[in-house]
Amino acid sequence: MGITKVFGNPGSTELPMFRDFPEDFDYVLALQESIAVGMADGYAQATRNAALVNLHSAAGVGHALGNIFTAFKNQTPMIVTAGQQARSILLYEPFLFADQPTDFPKPYVKWAIEPARAEDVPAAIARAYYIAMQPPRGPVFVSIPIDDWDRACEPLAPRRVSQTFEGDRILLDEAAKALGQAHSPAIVVGAGVARDDGWDEIIAVAERFGAAVWVSPMSARNSFPEDHPLFAGFLNASREAIVQSLSGADVILIAGGAMSTYHVEGFGPHAPPNAKVFQLVDNPTAAACAPVGVAVLTGLKQGLAALLAGPAPASRPRPPTRAPAPRLSGEVLDDRYLLQQIASLRPKGSIIVEEAPSSRGAMHDYLPILDRDGFYTCASGGLGHGLPAAIGVALGRPGEKVIAVLGDGSSMYAIQGLWTAAQLNLPISFVIIKNGRYEALAQFARLFGMQRTVGTALPQIDFQAVARGLGLPAAGAASSETLDAALTNAFNAAGPTLLEVVVD
Amino acid sequence: MGITKVFGNPGSTELPMFRDFPEDFDYVLALQESIAVGMADGYAQATRNAALVNLHSAAGVGHALGNIFTAFKNQTPMIVTAGQQARSILLYEPFLFADQPTDFPKPYVKWAIEPARAEDVPAAIARAYYIAMQPPRGPVFVSIPIDDWDRACEPLAPRRVSQTFEGDRILLDEAAKALGQAHSPAIVVGAGVARDDGWDEIIAVAERFGAAVWVSPMSARNSFPEDHPLFAGFLNASREAIVQSLSGADVILIAGGAMSTYHVEGFGPHAPPNAKVFQLVDNPTAAACAPVGVAVLTGLKQGLAALLAGPAPASRPRPPTRAPAPRLSGEVLDDRYLLQQIASLRPKGSIIVEEAPSSRGAMHDYLPILDRDGFYTCASGGLGHGLPAAIGVALGRPGEKVIAVLGDGSSMYAIQGLWTAAQLNLPISFVIIKNGRYEALAQFARLFGMQRTVGTALPQIDFQAVARGLGLPAAGAASSETLDAALTNAFNAAGPTLLEVVVD
Amino acid sequence: MGITKVFGNPGSTELPMFRDFPEDFDYVLALQESIAVGMADGYAQATRNAALVNLHSAAGVGHALGNIFTAFKNQTPMIVTAGQQARSILLYEPFLFADQPTDFPKPYVKWAIEPARAEDVPAAIARAYYIAMQPPRGPVFVSIPIDDWDRACEPLAPRRVSQTFEGDRILLDEAAKALGQAHSPAIVVGAGVARDDGWDEIIAVAERFGAAVWVSPMSARNSFPEDHPLFAGFLNASREAIVQSLSGADVILIAGGAMSTYHVEGFGPHAPPNAKVFQLVDNPTAAACAPVGVAVLTGLKQGLAALLAGPAPASRPRPPTRAPAPRLSGEVLDDRYLLQQIASLRPKGSIIVEEAPSSRGAMHDYLPILDRDGFYTCASGGLGHGLPAAIGVALGRPGEKVIAVLGDGSSMYAIQGLWTAAQLNLPISFVIIKNGRYEALAQFARLFGMQRTVGTALPQIDFQAVARGLGLPAAGAASSETLDAALTNAFNAAGPTLLEVVVD
Amino acid sequence: MGITKVFGNPGSTELPMFRDFPEDFDYVLALQESIAVGMADGYAQATRNAALVNLHSAAGVGHALGNIFTAFKNQTPMIVTAGQQARSILLYEPFLFADQPTDFPKPYVKWAIEPARAEDVPAAIARAYYIAMQPPRGPVFVSIPIDDWDRACEPLAPRRVSQTFEGDRILLDEAAKALGQAHSPAIVVGAGVARDDGWDEIIAVAERFGAAVWVSPMSARNSFPEDHPLFAGFLNASREAIVQSLSGADVILIAGGAMSTYHVEGFGPHAPPNAKVFQLVDNPTAAACAPVGVAVLTGLKQGLAALLAGPAPASRPRPPTRAPAPRLSGEVLDDRYLLQQIASLRPKGSIIVEEAPSSRGAMHDYLPILDRDGFYTCASGGLGHGLPAAIGVALGRPGEKVIAVLGDGSSMYAIQGLWTAAQLNLPISFVIIKNGRYEALAQFARLFGMQRTVGTALPQIDFQAVARGLGLPAAGAASSETLDAALTNAFNAAGPTLLEVVVD
Repeated sequence: MGITKVFGNPGSTELPMFRDFPEDFDYVLALQESIAVGMADGYAQATRNAALVNLHSAAGVGHALGNIFTAFKNQTPMIVTAGQQARSILLYEPFLFADQPTDFPKPYVKWAIEPARAEDVPAAIARAYYIAMQPPRGPVFVSIPIDDWDRACEPLAPRRVSQTFEGDRILLDEAAKALGQAHSPAIVVGAGVARDDGWDEIIAVAERFGAAVWVSPMSARNSFPEDHPLFAGFLNASREAIVQSLSGADVILIAGGAMSTYHVEGFGPHAPPNAKVFQLVDNPTAAACAPVGVAVLTGLKQGLAALLAGPAPASRPRPPTRAPAPRLSGEVLDDRYLLQQIASLRPKGSIIVEEAPSSRGAMHDYLPILDRDGFYTCASGGLGHGLPAAIGVALGRPGEKVIAVLGDGSSMYAIQGLWTAAQLNLPISFVIIKNGRYEALAQFARLFGMQRTVGTALPQIDFQAVARGLGLPAAGAASSETLDAALTNAFNAAGPTLLEVVVD
Repeated sequence: MGITKVFGNPGSTELPMFRDFPEDFDYVLALQESIAVGMADGYAQATRNAALVNLHSAAGVGHALGNIFTAFKNQTPMIVTAGQQARSILLYEPFLFADQPTDFPKPYVKWAIEPARAEDVPAAIARAYYIAMQPPRGPVFVSIPIDDWDRACEPLAPRRVSQTFEGDRILLDEAAKALGQAHSPAIVVGAGVARDDGWDEIIAVAERFGAAVWVSPMSARNSFPEDHPLFAGFLNASREAIVQSLSGADVILIAGGAMSTYHVEGFGPHAPPNAKVFQLVDNPTAAACAPVGVAVLTGLKQGLAALLAGPAPASRPRPPTRAPAPRLSGEVLDDRYLLQQIASLRPKGSIIVEEAPSSRGAMHDYLPILDRDGFYTCASGGLGHGLPAAIGVALGRPGEKVIAVLGDGSSMYAIQGLWTAAQLNLPISFVIIKNGRYEALAQFARLFGMQRTVGTALPQIDFQAVARGLGLPAAGAASSETLDAALTNAFNAAGPTLLEVVVD
Repeated sequence: MGITKVFGNPGSTELPMFRDFPEDFDYVLALQESIAVGMADGYAQATRNAALVNLHSAAGVGHALGNIFTAFKNQTPMIVTAGQQARSILLYEPFLFADQPTDFPKPYVKWAIEPARAEDVPAAIARAYYIAMQPPRGPVFVSIPIDDWDRACEPLAPRRVSQTFEGDRILLDEAAKALGQAHSPAIVVGAGVARDDGWDEIIAVAERFGAAVWVSPMSARNSFPEDHPLFAGFLNASREAIVQSLSGADVILIAGGAMSTYHVEGFGPHAPPNAKVFQLVDNPTAAACAPVGVAVLTGLKQGLAALLAGPAPASRPRPPTRAPAPRLSGEVLDDRYLLQQIASLRPKGSIIVEEAPSSRGAMHDYLPILDRDGFYTCASGGLGHGLPAAIGVALGRPGEKVIAVLGDGSSMYAIQGLWTAAQLNLPISFVIIKNGRYEALAQFARLFGMQRTVGTALPQIDFQAVARGLGLPAAGAASSETLDAALTNAFNAAGPTLLEVVVD
Repeated sequence: MGITKVFGNPGSTELPMFRDFPEDFDYVLALQESIAVGMADGYAQATRNAALVNLHSAAGVGHALGNIFTAFKNQTPMIVTAGQQARSILLYEPFLFADQPTDFPKPYVKWAIEPARAEDVPAAIARAYYIAMQPPRGPVFVSIPIDDWDRACEPLAPRRVSQTFEGDRILLDEAAKALGQAHSPAIVVGAGVARDDGWDEIIAVAERFGAAVWVSPMSARNSFPEDHPLFAGFLNASREAIVQSLSGADVILIAGGAMSTYHVEGFGPHAPPNAKVFQLVDNPTAAACAPVGVAVLTGLKQGLAALLAGPAPASRPRPPTRAPAPRLSGEVLDDRYLLQQIASLRPKGSIIVEEAPSSRGAMHDYLPILDRDGFYTCASGGLGHGLPAAIGVALGRPGEKVIAVLGDGSSMYAIQGLWTAAQLNLPISFVIIKNGRYEALAQFARLFGMQRTVGTALPQIDFQAVARGLGLPAAGAASSETLDAALTNAFNAAGPTLLEVVVD
């Protein structure tokens, strides 16, 4: 199945896995289980194949469930295995035993099983793989009693099972026709386009129909070149703001995601009045829970191709091109300036992995993503994913430079991952945007009219010291003057580095 | 209800909690959610009252579930609350929304609810408290939609709900009679004695019946003075070893735990042939799943008191007293010597919190626990609990010194907790036993006859650098010569320190 | 464990059970699975021991879950086993296979398992028994793959596991003291007193303290003689009505149930102002969810005994004795008259099993229950329980007469049970109160101010024909003149009979 | 959404539904909840639209779960709603309250919700509809607190959401090519073809490729005319038998189901050696759990159309035509003769609904199904579905004759349904094959080498009496001489009838 790595953190109940560990597999060690899952997530996304994770009984699964939740929202295919105590002693509730093991990861796995016999473990893993790779992709779980490793079983032949499908032809034709007849069409692109490798197709669709292209709220992947003349910008995760951004559109095509992913409660209509909305997604839940529009279940690459095959649209004026953000001088070293300089100095084709929620707006303006598969973040809002995901992406795309843009708060959820990056000597620049607080919460507090927040200050963390303690070269930058050199050093390094940038 | 602290890590869906945050509550910030739960666990155990935790939606709950699992096994009362998106937008699957939120923490919470109305949140929390405090104690979960914070509700009067009960009189009388008539009784003490504050009672019972006292396998608390003449030692978590240790006993009293908590598969009988076994526990599951013996559901303090109230036993010879371990000279700085020196130098009455699985045997020999409530570890085997639990214990027992004895591997599961210890300036000595590997796994591999393990080496972690990066003074010791001074410095410090001890 | 019957309905996946079916067991066949569970419930209640049920895979469990829910609310100990397909083919989702079998009966079982090995099935059933019999008692579930029946395993010795416990002494003493000092105490008795065989104790408590005794709302058992001078009546399942009934009481003792089991929404206080409330229950949930009062977890027989052991109360005037309902002349044959005549004519010591919701009020007035263990109904409100439960009670109390008082609507939920009654020739008088509609709903509709209901008329059912079709002698009565003779005939019959009484 | 009927059984917690019950809806009353669901299942299948069911709180859901399980296996779209107690009293565990209501129907619903606000109930039902109608279709669950009925909410516009999709073009092309090149192709048709209305397409595919057509094991619908020259017969639900039937085939197309639905454990290969297997299904689980072959997720009508669009196959000899069963003379009135006479005498175009497991083999030989949508049975093996399903089919196809072929044992699981058939005066002939035992079990016992079964005899049921008691005309036939007239009478009746046929 193309799997050659096991991401994990071992314990006694998994040890027999190592007895005849195959030579053509690598074991990628994480120091805490959520790191293992985060790495596997990045790796699976980068390779577009299910990643294999091994965790330690219930405690290990428990530590990992935050990132398993994120993998579920990311639609990342992943096989999570966990050790279980020996079958013969389970009824006595032994040490390290997992009670009702298949219930624990629910509801954020697509399938969970503890096979009824030792002999069935391989077939269970195979079935887990097929399920993980079916649309919508996601994590699956297999609990493996320790004594099962020493039982023989029959060999198992691999199968091919659908990994995609095409949408209902009637609905796709209707969408193509509506786009063709639209006066002012708009496209909202979500992560599904990138997941399905629909980069060429979405560009072709946008150009064919002359549609303004918006990025769906909180999209976890880049699905359209942000320097394209039809690129219109990013939808905010707010009902009123979305409707405002899309006002004027008479036909809206949502490709590979949802238009109505709200971060705050809102009121009023969910789409501009009189706009016809078509949503192409491979996720039945996304189709069913959208508040408005015609929903078409489809693989994105295939669905977009169907739109391209329809009759030619009438010619119409192109939408205006988005104005670039004005260039910053660096008088203040804030996140915007930092991101601008990253954009200027980073190696061509380098990959951005982001987890800096309060800087996402600045990133939209100052660090445009131009390349296919050039950007990864988490779809769930769960912090602690970006740092290990950057490691997984680097593993999955050897020879490519990865830049992890991380908040100071965010990075602390998974700081242990630095050690694995160091051990594997991966070409990752970890850039810490250090503002000394949970700035996203401060922003939200202002939105909620609160004068005071509690528990949002993060003083006195020396990231350089921590990084060095975990084996990474580290540097700092606290002024615009020193920033460029520091970034250049980091981007030029062959292995991992951490750069702590104190921002205003 | 005696609750004055909220342990947590905040996010946008919990922010309104801070709007009118009560002046008489403290918010204890953790940098990752499993740390928040680990701290709360230690605090709840130290104060013998439920601790309150606030987490961020599904991702935060996910990160915390490893330590929630441990809290469940610890029988630690704990109210875990988590933010949920606004009720009106839940059907659209908004950002940061938790799908089926009450299913996620199962099966390792006693109860989980998302109240049917905003007005019911306080009553739900009250009920959660009562459930958490009922025997067997444990964590409970309340999901709170963000908009609920701004709804008014009627005031709620606190109630008193049973927090203990006494065992069936007939069974207790039978146990008392059997102990009285025994020729060679033995007692196996588990964590339940300590949880129920049965220190005086278990000593009295042991002395009354002249019974040898063993510690149950993997006991998470100290329930008997390890320098008492009747103290016999520690049961290994292996069926054959347990039966061997207890051979000769004709009546066995298990108090507050299980005799048959196995870490490895075993065979043969579960107790010495012909021994009568009585088990006193407050946990129905522990009663039902024991392989042998009469199980009595009872509060431990009460159950032991009932045994003391029976007829006086016949006099019989006392069992032999356990020989102390021979004193080590320090030629080799191994974990045994380190523990011996901790025992020698530590302040009287200081509290040990342990998470160093491969050194637990050495600890039994060289760091005896002599005081009531002097020792805490986790009941689950889940790593990443001890470091934050030490913080919680220090918070719960102000003015007392806490010594956290941690493996290098163990400490990395929750290393972020050091920052909170530093911020709160708590009198904790974090002592890292640095052997550069997951030594417990190496031990197990030998047990399983394996020549090779994968993923068990932990090179190149500089704990001192990491600790300093998180705000703690740190020191190292790599030889016996420097060890005593380093320990003394650490024990004398008013605030937290980290001591990295490289062992052989 | 004292089990000698298997209640069930077989299928292919359970057939091997019959291969060496033990000679000292009876198989009690039901024609539909809910009947099997209802019978087992009555039998378990009558014998105060867990009953054993065998069902057919998922479909059989599904049919039975309504009555399993009722058994859970009844706190009836019951081991429900179900067949599963052969282990080796489960991954292919074979015919009659149960997916996630242990999840299906949740949340209304105390425990559910599919053992990890065939060899563990007996130990799983033993553990299931211990759990079912722990307070609060209830159903448990064991899924058994068909091929497990043919595997050998080691013999298993039975254990004794607590089946009761005593309440916290401090709280019980406080309750005893409050009752002793009360000016106007009241007692609310629930089914728990009867379940725990606390008949003598509750009478003694009531007499010692001179307390008026009310029956808790919707109590499923009789716990106090309804002709006792201290008997005060039945609490309605309405907040306002309960407070009204108990007004004047200064100390309220709730024994074996809940005072606040509401059938409709209500407002205002949950207890009379200034009344001290003490609740003795063996069910932690009932303790935690009560809106007011001190809750004591305790076996009822033991808890009541503790109240009797306290200091003698001051003398105080006795509460007034409840006036009996005026005797009806029979001008109208309504349910009240029918119940009055049953009361007059029934054999002394006969047992009433009731499922006639709209006649429960009439029953309180006209069919008083005077004997210990003289009455059974369901605690859940789920119809389809009474008819089979009557069969189970008759099986569990051989030689005693059972009178099943059933509504016409109620009886149709489980009408298949008549066949089993006929086959076993049990001494049961099924009395159908035929009013031709779901009268309880009509009552509720009036309460809700509704002019019209839909789906509540039940015309054209000839119960006599149905009964005869299933093998029972049947008769009818449509006037007061013929009623007495018909009742007398039914009560005198050695075997089962059905009497259809058309009421006004 | 095209819904105009509510199938149900009401209780107090659902009563407000009737307050303004819409004039253009019918309420179809069942006397027990499993009947309501069975009727809805038949209706939904007949109308190819989701049916709406209303049940009474947990007890009602519990009674219904056997047939909800069957609806899940049938892939029948169905919205099951259930009443819940008032939101404000849920925390007190009121009478008739459902604890964790969304967990109860799991795992056999696709989705379950209790909306977070009263205002969201309509949107929840809409989303439930969309989910129920997505492939694979199935039941969904909405719990509705009683007080929600009286809250106002905003109007909700219906949406269109994908109800089908097309398979991966690459895999479909490969299948088409393989079929075209095959020497000896075979087709296995499952219920999915009928569900997706692919009758014309499967005939065209079979004829285009000259493939022998087998019916998949335990298929619940008829998907191919059983008198077609290419019709080859029925696969048994046994691994060895399936491989034997298909031996010789070099390409096998499974359309709309599974080839490997086993009823008994088996061994050896799952398909003939060297056969290429392609499976077209709309159910991801069926795709993932098949033991062999290439699985293509697709709507069946669309997938088959894609096969027809490929290049023309080479000509090849046609497979032999299946020999018809020899005509029986009626010397013995057994199930075979009965089915033969039904085939001879039944009205053209009449619909067969079957639940007579032990006669299914005979039916294959003597009662061939020739018409599109001419046959319904259950996919789960759960008895108690066929009788009410026949009622639902009759409701969904007004003006058409339905013949329910039921075993005597089978019919007793849902006998209450006869009353609803009588009340609605539907043109259904219920034919009871009365052999006085659970004959399917006797067959299985012989297969398992058992001499004796327990609980399989069903003496002394007079179905004619029962039917008359429930309002149906009834007749009997105990000899071949009287059979034809009895059948003719039944088939000619305008309303429902029951015919009890005693077979040898």
